Amino acid sequence: MQLSQTAEYALRAVVWLAEHPGDPQTTQQIADGCKVPVSYLSKVFQPLSKVGMVSAQRGLGGGYVLERDVDQISLLDVVNAVEPVQRIRSCPLKLASHGSKLCALHQSLDNAMAEVEQRFGQIMIGQLLRNSTGVRPLCETTGLAQLGISARAGGSPGQAP
Amino acid sequence: MQLSQTAEYALRAVVWLAEHPGDPQTTQQIADGCKVPVSYLSKVFQPLSKVGMVSAQRGLGGGYVLERDVDQISLLDVVNAVEPVQRIRSCPLKLASHGSKLCALHQSLDNAMAEVEQRFGQIMIGQLLRNSTGVRPLCETTGLAQLGISARAGGSPGQAP
Repeated sequence: MQLSQTAEYALRAVVWLAEHPGDPQTTQQIADGCKVPVSYLSKVFQPLSKVGMVSAQRGLGGGYVLERDVDQISLLDVVNAVEPVQRIRSCPLKLASHGSKLCALHQSLDNAMAEVEQRFGQIMIGQLLRNSTGVRPLCETTGLAQLGISARAGGSPGQAP
Repeated sequence: MQLSQTAEYALRAVVWLAEHPGDPQTTQQIADGCKVPVSYLSKVFQPLSKVGMVSAQRGLGGGYVLERDVDQISLLDVVNAVEPVQRIRSCPLKLASHGSKLCALHQSLDNAMAEVEQRFGQIMIGQLLRNSTGVRPLCETTGLAQLGISARAGGSPGQAP
């Protein structure tokens, strides 16, 4: 049981944009800051754009920006936009006698998924930025990116998304 | 976020064995009953055998049996034997400044994983069998397998594992 890499990358990207309000971020800046392959970012931004969470501003100084308030975006919103938490709605064995009624095994598994959904739904991106664990999300790479230094080999920032 | 198919199959297989105490089950019977490809079962039984949860009895009337009391096997024992719940122990971005201290984002994700671990650790296989949701785990296919009818195309029961 684990969070998919796509969901993890989407969360990093959204947190990154949340940390750069009013400052459109290029795919290269986001890739460097989030340590996500540039090639992977489109897979992440396509669904995030589709649900209106982010948008791309073209041209000089263009890049991706958040379209919603950081306190209106939950972890669940991000995760479900790219790879929804898998609830168990009907018997995975497709047993006719079970139908939509789950056995104790699958009900237990679905209950766990429901708890994850609930927890993720309660945590807003804004909270993560204000949270003072002493470690700011992506902080180190934020600095690097602002200096225009790539956190991974290759790629200079400043390109349009 | 979802339970891996390997973990799902392992849970089905263990529940199946739990439902057949003192009656060694062949890979074909388990595959039929659990609707798991026979070829996939070895991937599931290898780690379950390694941790001593199941064992294979060779020869006529042989098959897999549970080696532990059903009330001593938790969902977490089964899941962790085949594909452990992925906890986040250190910064996935490998940020030197974070080290083993997680930022609010990854701490939140790990907290969710910790809750899943805790819940899975509290649910014993025995409970699932006694649970009266009105739908017994794998019940329909249990009947099929006992009649020697394959729940999926091909494969007759009775082979040694």
